[in-house]
Amino acid sequence: MPLLHAILLLLQAATTPAAAHDPLPEDWRTIPDEELLVMRLTGNRTVTIRLAATLTPRHVDNIRRLAAYGWWNGESVYRVQENWVAQWGDVTEKKPLPPGVATAVAPEFEIARFAPAQRMSRADTHSAVAGITADGWPVTSDGHGAAWLAHCYGMVGVARDEAPTSGTGAELFTPIGQSARRLDRNYAVVGRIIDGMHHLSALPRGAGAMGVYADPAERTPIRSMTLASALPVSERPHFQYRAADNPRFAALIHRREYPPAPTIGSGGADVCEVPLEVRRAP
Amino acid sequence: MPLLHAILLLLQAATTPAAAHDPLPEDWRTIPDEELLVMRLTGNRTVTIRLAATLTPRHVDNIRRLAAYGWWNGESVYRVQENWVAQWGDVTEKKPLPPGVATAVAPEFEIARFAPAQRMSRADTHSAVAGITADGWPVTSDGHGAAWLAHCYGMVGVARDEAPTSGTGAELFTPIGQSARRLDRNYAVVGRIIDGMHHLSALPRGAGAMGVYADPAERTPIRSMTLASALPVSERPHFQYRAADNPRFAALIHRREYPPAPTIGSGGADVCEVPLEVRRAP
Repeated sequence: MPLLHAILLLLQAATTPAAAHDPLPEDWRTIPDEELLVMRLTGNRTVTIRLAATLTPRHVDNIRRLAAYGWWNGESVYRVQENWVAQWGDVTEKKPLPPGVATAVAPEFEIARFAPAQRMSRADTHSAVAGITADGWPVTSDGHGAAWLAHCYGMVGVARDEAPTSGTGAELFTPIGQSARRLDRNYAVVGRIIDGMHHLSALPRGAGAMGVYADPAERTPIRSMTLASALPVSERPHFQYRAADNPRFAALIHRREYPPAPTIGSGGADVCEVPLEVRRAP
Repeated sequence: MPLLHAILLLLQAATTPAAAHDPLPEDWRTIPDEELLVMRLTGNRTVTIRLAATLTPRHVDNIRRLAAYGWWNGESVYRVQENWVAQWGDVTEKKPLPPGVATAVAPEFEIARFAPAQRMSRADTHSAVAGITADGWPVTSDGHGAAWLAHCYGMVGVARDEAPTSGTGAELFTPIGQSARRLDRNYAVVGRIIDGMHHLSALPRGAGAMGVYADPAERTPIRSMTLASALPVSERPHFQYRAADNPRFAALIHRREYPPAPTIGSGGADVCEVPLEVRRAP
């Protein structure tokens, strides 16, 4: 590109006003190292999870203890069910848990309160009200005091047996198709995959019951699952989330609900369709 | 298993009344051969599409002509965008169309009328009313006369350029993550993948813009895409859909909306969560 042209383009970029839905620099906020869970799969595949530390603290506490112990290291992604979930942990579900990990965790299917910074214009099919918290989590509520995190695509849930207290955080799953909203209020949501989701969503589906791999060789081994704060400083990933407590984010939702012509909008958008942007720290 | 035990189990199965949401034999209806589009990918992977022949007839007519001509044979799945769509056809979008294929098809973003056999209890975020037609299609409406097919996971849409009439049916896509409902009324929906969806949803994601594969070698070649009616009789697949115009299907939706305890339901379910069952003809 000729130099003059490049200079003109730069000048134009500097003088073009940002769209109402574009974030300002201050909208990007750091995700603390102790809220980043880094899962390294074989083949140099890394999946990074942001933990909902303030919303489901008891399960996140367990998860931090499991990570510190190295409990997942050498385990696997053992279940990938088409249009449903990918699940990882110990396939036998019998591996002893490390000391200090609670085994009868009071369920955190719900969160303490519904406190979105932005609300969706319409109720959705699984909740009376829905919105995004200031720190970027999709939350939903029955409108009568109960509130919970939505099982959107890429959220991380705690697998469990029938007993509501049986989910420790050792076995985790993420929806890989249509959002698994019918799990809302029935499973604890502990985080969201913010990087490397395709390493789970594009895995071969399992042929066994509920998508469990029939052949152990099909499992994807987990090399390690570690909090970023426990990694050597030079290996720590640094991510920022886009805060929702500002008019730019309101404009973002509005644009999803009322897209510019010629696109025909409906005046609504699913809470799971709001882009919860995350970027690497510049 | 001891023989006596087996006999007892058989007797029990024969005498246990079916649940209210279980289909009766007459609920299974044949999908005609000319409404089954069979896409064979390399590696013995087959994806079967049910065409919405009565709802988007102009695009389906084009698709039948393209299939009869063998237009897709040797083309590829060239775009797989994480949590969005997989797309196939001619990557250059410039390959000449066969004679008789209309190039300025009047858009079929909407269908003639909203005629569900079963309605969802709640409006959803993208439509005032939603339901399932007697022959098993998810339909939605603004409640004021406009109706359209919903871009649920696995539905097949017609890719196009900016001009609304630019979609011929030659380039097709399917949502592979969160349902692409914000495409509703903006793209023609011509069918649904009823078998082999994992051959598309589990493909590696493309690293190029919009998920297009950066390297042509990453594309998945299409060996053939043919109507079942054009296949040798011995090779034709035979599928049946579960009809929705009966109280068993109403009970199925009700069970999704109000699941049995201890599961906590919301009294709602997304139209894209209704299982639109299909089976191979017995």
